[in-house]
Amino acid sequence: MDIFEKCYAPSLATDLQEKGVYPYFRALQSRQDVEVMMEGKRRIMLGSNNYLGLTTDPEVIEAGVRTMEKFGTGCSGSRFLNGTLELHLELEEALASFLHKEGVITFGTGFQSNVGIISALVGRHDYVICDRENHASIYAGCQMSYGKMLRYRHSDMEDLEKQLRRVPEQNGALIVTDGVFSMGGDIAKLPEICALAKKYGARVMVDDAHGLGVLGPGGRGTASHFGLEDQVDVYMGTFSKSLASLGGYMAADKAVTEYVRHTSRPFIFSASIPPANCATALAALRKLERHPELPERLRDLSLYARKGFTDRGLKIRESALSAPTPIIPIYTYETMHTLDAAQKIYDRGVYVNPTLPPATPEGEALLRTSYMATHTEALLDEAMDIMAEVLLHE
Amino acid sequence: MDIFEKCYAPSLATDLQEKGVYPYFRALQSRQDVEVMMEGKRRIMLGSNNYLGLTTDPEVIEAGVRTMEKFGTGCSGSRFLNGTLELHLELEEALASFLHKEGVITFGTGFQSNVGIISALVGRHDYVICDRENHASIYAGCQMSYGKMLRYRHSDMEDLEKQLRRVPEQNGALIVTDGVFSMGGDIAKLPEICALAKKYGARVMVDDAHGLGVLGPGGRGTASHFGLEDQVDVYMGTFSKSLASLGGYMAADKAVTEYVRHTSRPFIFSASIPPANCATALAALRKLERHPELPERLRDLSLYARKGFTDRGLKIRESALSAPTPIIPIYTYETMHTLDAAQKIYDRGVYVNPTLPPATPEGEALLRTSYMATHTEALLDEAMDIMAEVLLHE
Repeated sequence: MDIFEKCYAPSLATDLQEKGVYPYFRALQSRQDVEVMMEGKRRIMLGSNNYLGLTTDPEVIEAGVRTMEKFGTGCSGSRFLNGTLELHLELEEALASFLHKEGVITFGTGFQSNVGIISALVGRHDYVICDRENHASIYAGCQMSYGKMLRYRHSDMEDLEKQLRRVPEQNGALIVTDGVFSMGGDIAKLPEICALAKKYGARVMVDDAHGLGVLGPGGRGTASHFGLEDQVDVYMGTFSKSLASLGGYMAADKAVTEYVRHTSRPFIFSASIPPANCATALAALRKLERHPELPERLRDLSLYARKGFTDRGLKIRESALSAPTPIIPIYTYETMHTLDAAQKIYDRGVYVNPTLPPATPEGEALLRTSYMATHTEALLDEAMDIMAEVLLHE
Repeated sequence: MDIFEKCYAPSLATDLQEKGVYPYFRALQSRQDVEVMMEGKRRIMLGSNNYLGLTTDPEVIEAGVRTMEKFGTGCSGSRFLNGTLELHLELEEALASFLHKEGVITFGTGFQSNVGIISALVGRHDYVICDRENHASIYAGCQMSYGKMLRYRHSDMEDLEKQLRRVPEQNGALIVTDGVFSMGGDIAKLPEICALAKKYGARVMVDDAHGLGVLGPGGRGTASHFGLEDQVDVYMGTFSKSLASLGGYMAADKAVTEYVRHTSRPFIFSASIPPANCATALAALRKLERHPELPERLRDLSLYARKGFTDRGLKIRESALSAPTPIIPIYTYETMHTLDAAQKIYDRGVYVNPTLPPATPEGEALLRTSYMATHTEALLDEAMDIMAEVLLHE
C-alpha cells in the first residue's frame, strides 16, 4: 500500500474551508501585539501567549538587534559542540538565579525541552505519571522515554495516589504536570501533588510554559505561587511566551541538569538558540525582574476579563473561574457552532482560538481567550462586547 | 527508588574533566566564523555546520535586524493558531520554488522537523526503514510514530532490499536516509534506494541537513546531485546550517505537506519561528540563489582539505574519501588518544569535534572536521599542519 494514501483522503480542513469557517493559519502582516493586522484587517488579539507583551518592547528588540549585529544570525551547531556562546551561559545563570534553582539548560524549542528532559530522566525501569490534560509535548517526551507512563484524571488527587501506588518500591517515579493548564486556564494542585510525591518517594516536574511571568511573586511561576520552590524538583518553561523569544529550558539541581546535559539526545543533537534569540530572552527576563508590576497588571486584566464575561452573561469554563491566570475559556459547546462563532467574531475584529474535541470533551467545545499585560480595559471591553453580541444574540 | 539516582552516579564527563580532556561546551566570545574566539583564544573553526559562512554575511544580518525592528522578537504562538506571519508563507514559497517541490512547511528546529514529519506520516500499520547511521532525530521520529521500524546496515542495498521484502503488501513503507551522513561525510546511494523503493512500492524521504547548500546544482541538495528530485518524495532540511538561522522544513507534494500541517503534533503544538529567524533564513536562501558559486567554492575547499590531509599522511575514513562533501573524518582509533589529540589540537588553535563510540564502531574513534565556503586555503593549511604535527609526531 502507498504510505501516502492517508494524505489523499478527504480532510476536515478542506471541509471547513468550503464552509467558510476554517480558523487556522491566518497570516499576520504586523507585529504580534494587542492589536494586529491579520488578513488585511485590524483585529484585537485575544489568542496569543505573549503574556507580558514583551515581543514589541523597545529594550528587548534593541538587545536582539545589537546582538545580531555583533554575533551574527546563528551558531550552526549544538550547544554540546561548537554552538555554545558565553551568552547562553549568561542566560542560563540569570534564569537559575531568578528561579532559585542551581542549574538551567536551554533547548531550541519548548516542545523539544519536554521531549529532551523527560526522555533523559525517565529510564527503562522508571515510571512517569501524567495529568490527562498535560500538554502534547509532555506526552511526546513520555513516548520517547523507555519508561512506563501512567495517567491520572485531570487534577484528581485520588486518582494520582492510585497511580502512585502502582509503582513498585524499587522503581523510580516522576510526576509531570502543567503548572497552568494551557486549555483550561486552571492551576495544578501543587500542594497536594508535592505531598503525595513525598509520601511515595516520587519526584515532581512542572511545565511552567504558561506560569512563568504570570503567577507567583515577580512572575516566578506556579511553584513560587504556592511557596513550593524547594519541593518542585524540575521546572520546564519556554522563552516563546512571557519571555518574547524562542526556545525552552529546564531548571533543577545541578546534578540533574548536568545529567540531562550529557545524556539528552534532543539537547545534544540539535542546534543551539541563535545569539539574538538568547539576547531577547535575557532582556525580557531582566525586564521582568525590574518590573514585578507586569505580572500584577496581567492578573488585574485577567480578573477584569473574567468579571466582564460573567457580567455580559457568557459562561466561563469552571476550571478557569477562580484562577488568576490569563487564560479564559468560554463555553460554546457544539463544534460547528464554535467554528461559526469564531468566524463571526473574527470578521468583526477579534482573534480568539476555537478549541474543539478531542482537545475538549465532546459537546464542550470552547473559545480560548488569553490576555497580555499590555492590553487595556477599553480594548478588552470592545472585544468582550463583540463576543457577547455574537454569542448571545446571533 | 529515587528516579534521580542516576544523576548522582559518577559520570564520564567528570572523569574527562579531571583528566583535562573534556571537549564539550566550549564557549565562544565571538561570532561563529572561520576563526573564532573560544575560551579566550583564537581558534580556526573546523567544527561548524555553517557551510556557506552566511551567519556573518552583512546582507543576512541586515535582513534579520530590519525584520526584528519591524516585527518584534517573537510570535508567541503556533503556526497553526496566532503564530503565522506572511513572512513564514514567503519563506515556504521561496524554498518550495528553490527545491522544485509543491509544498513546504517549517518547524522550530531541524530535530523537531524529523520528529514531526515521521511521526505524522508513519501510522500504526506503516513501516519506516532506516539506514543505521541516520541522525538521532530520525530515530526520535520513528520512536514517536506508531509504526514499525526496520533498520538496514549503513548504505547496504542488499540489506535494504531484505528489509523491504519484510513489509507486507497491504502495509505502507517509507525509506528514510540522511542525504549526506553527518558523521561519515558520505552520500546516500539514492539511485539504488529510489530503484528499490519503486520496486517495492515504498516512498523515500531524505534528511538533507548536510546536503542543502552543499550538493547538486546551485546547492539544491542530494536528490538534485543525482538528478532524482522527482523520485525523492520528501525532503527534510534545516535552517541552522547552510541557511544561517534556526529551524527546519519539510518539502513534498502539496497533499503530503497539507496532511502533515494538519496532523503533526510537534508542528501544531509548538511556537513558530520568530520573525528575524525567518528573515535570515530567507535572506540566506536568496543569497544562495544568486551565488551558485558558493557551494562550488565549498566543494573545492573540501577537496583541497581531502588532498591536504592525505598528502600529510593522515588517514581519512574511507566513507568520505571520494565524496565531495564538506565533512572529513580523520581516524584516530582509540578513545583516550582521540580526546588527548583533540585537546592538543585545540590548545594549538584548531577546533575539531572528537567523535567517539557509540557514534563510531569501537576502536574507530575519529576527529570530525567540517568546512565553510569562507575558509581560505591558507587557513586550512595552517590547521592541517597543526593536526598533522599532533597526530603524527606526538
